[in-house]
Amino acid sequence: MSQTGREIQLAARPHGEPTPDDFRLVEVEVPDPQDGQVLVRNLLMSVDPYMRGRMNDVPSYVPPFKLDKALAGAAVGEVIASRADGVEEGALVVHDRGWREYAVLDARYAHRIDRSIAPPSAFLGVLGSTGLTAYAGLLDVAGLREGDVVFVSGAAGAVGSVAGQIAKLRGHTVIGSAGSPEKVALLRDQLGFDAAFDYHDGRVSKLLRAAAPDGIDVYFDNVGGEHLEAAIGSLRRYGRIALCGAISSYNATEPPAGPRNMHMAIGKRLTMRGFIVFDHHDRRPDFEREVGSWLREGRLHAPETIVEGGIEQAPQAFIDLLRGTNTGKMLVRLQS
Amino acid sequence: MSQTGREIQLAARPHGEPTPDDFRLVEVEVPDPQDGQVLVRNLLMSVDPYMRGRMNDVPSYVPPFKLDKALAGAAVGEVIASRADGVEEGALVVHDRGWREYAVLDARYAHRIDRSIAPPSAFLGVLGSTGLTAYAGLLDVAGLREGDVVFVSGAAGAVGSVAGQIAKLRGHTVIGSAGSPEKVALLRDQLGFDAAFDYHDGRVSKLLRAAAPDGIDVYFDNVGGEHLEAAIGSLRRYGRIALCGAISSYNATEPPAGPRNMHMAIGKRLTMRGFIVFDHHDRRPDFEREVGSWLREGRLHAPETIVEGGIEQAPQAFIDLLRGTNTGKMLVRLQS
Repeated sequence: MSQTGREIQLAARPHGEPTPDDFRLVEVEVPDPQDGQVLVRNLLMSVDPYMRGRMNDVPSYVPPFKLDKALAGAAVGEVIASRADGVEEGALVVHDRGWREYAVLDARYAHRIDRSIAPPSAFLGVLGSTGLTAYAGLLDVAGLREGDVVFVSGAAGAVGSVAGQIAKLRGHTVIGSAGSPEKVALLRDQLGFDAAFDYHDGRVSKLLRAAAPDGIDVYFDNVGGEHLEAAIGSLRRYGRIALCGAISSYNATEPPAGPRNMHMAIGKRLTMRGFIVFDHHDRRPDFEREVGSWLREGRLHAPETIVEGGIEQAPQAFIDLLRGTNTGKMLVRLQS
Repeated sequence: MSQTGREIQLAARPHGEPTPDDFRLVEVEVPDPQDGQVLVRNLLMSVDPYMRGRMNDVPSYVPPFKLDKALAGAAVGEVIASRADGVEEGALVVHDRGWREYAVLDARYAHRIDRSIAPPSAFLGVLGSTGLTAYAGLLDVAGLREGDVVFVSGAAGAVGSVAGQIAKLRGHTVIGSAGSPEKVALLRDQLGFDAAFDYHDGRVSKLLRAAAPDGIDVYFDNVGGEHLEAAIGSLRRYGRIALCGAISSYNATEPPAGPRNMHMAIGKRLTMRGFIVFDHHDRRPDFEREVGSWLREGRLHAPETIVEGGIEQAPQAFIDLLRGTNTGKMLVRLQS
């Protein structure tokens, strides 16, 4: 009864920008599930910027990916064989064994999703860790409070597009930055941002000052680098920064320049706080209630870029993600 | 009855390191105190790194000093004439009209001190804003908690020497950096630091790793620059930085390099928070009780560098302060 399936392995640790040669598509034997396990046929997998860090052989908050082993990440799949009580065949589940067509895992790590609430892709994005990252980053890390003017970088990305909309729906003035005129138009015309700019159009500090002439109170940072320095310059007294990502440096081969205006954090009494969504699962009930209802009411949009063509497309999708070709959540469809 | 006295005016805004030519010693008429005012003969004045920022014509948390006007800063003096109820001649007061031999000010801004508690100089240092900065920075800004390993930069300076000792007296492992072998010896042998290094002896990141091989939990930053980058590298998960000063950049004519490892703040979930002592006066009762009792018991030392020779020495004392020639609090004796 055992079968085969394809997976993407890490063939080499990327130096700088990953290339297709850093990945390897391999056909492997899929073991039968043991007691307490399920066999899942993956339908969709997520590619996320944080995965770039795991491709380096350095200690971080998650262990590095192993060479010549399958990569991993969030995926949605259908249970096609179960030896676990309470999980029947046909159930749809979210789990962390992406980058492969079939996954065998302990049922307790497979979280059932309800297709009647939202399409499966939403559970990898706006209703998944992506959305919770945006929600907890704003509310708990940045301590969003009434009247705050909010700046979100990478605002057309998966986390940024949700963060900006949550701030908007809570009544804040929201400014976003993105990497193309089309993305800027999306932010302004469809996602309700008050102002948005293309960071290619000049120095970020100048663009931000033009978009928020009276300054900002909260910066949700997905980008790092020049964006972070510009935000420190524009933050008002008692401003807060949620450090969520630093995509501008993920492919860097040299340490990137740091913000040259850190001393401003003293006089302005700024707080900068790095965070990882792992630490914020206590926020999930609030998050699901609030974001879920905005989604159902059609007030919150979840832009997605779904790459078709099967698992063989995953490496290129990941490379493109780091180049910013996606709008919203970047997913790869493994099977339909 | 009116008299004359000397004051130090800002003759030019310093470019880079201040020079004696940026200051001017002027003899001025001292007005008689009006109703509600006192006339104070200053005994000691404080020179502080933050004053360098006020010499630039840029907005900050305090307005810039005005050209051709007297500088200002903390001082202790004796009331020699009073037209205010409850403040008699002979009282010793702390106020903010330093850099002049005589000051006329509203009595409500003159805070009486009690010489039986500590010598007058202590009210400008360990029992004044300097000590409160150290106390509030550790407890409220860095959120010091049991078991934290604490790193203090500029640890032989006014704030740093108090911060390190407070952390030690509260039971923490404390590492300090300073700018000379003599200062390092002071930290180790007299102030009870567990480890200390001279930052001239190599890369700060390497020196810090050697002094705290298992990492640190709290960084009290008086220096900025390379120290800040090193601390980010050595901080453990959930570490905290109290951004108090950035003396390494105060005389800079170009923006200094920023920390190139800001992205580490994400994975480690670091919190960096800038602060100004103004916001922490609610801590004064706790501070006076706790630090006052350590002082009385002789468990906390308050190193001082007192420059003799009158007000004409103040500009050079300030220049030397920024070069780090002082140990502990830097004061100028105006009259004895």
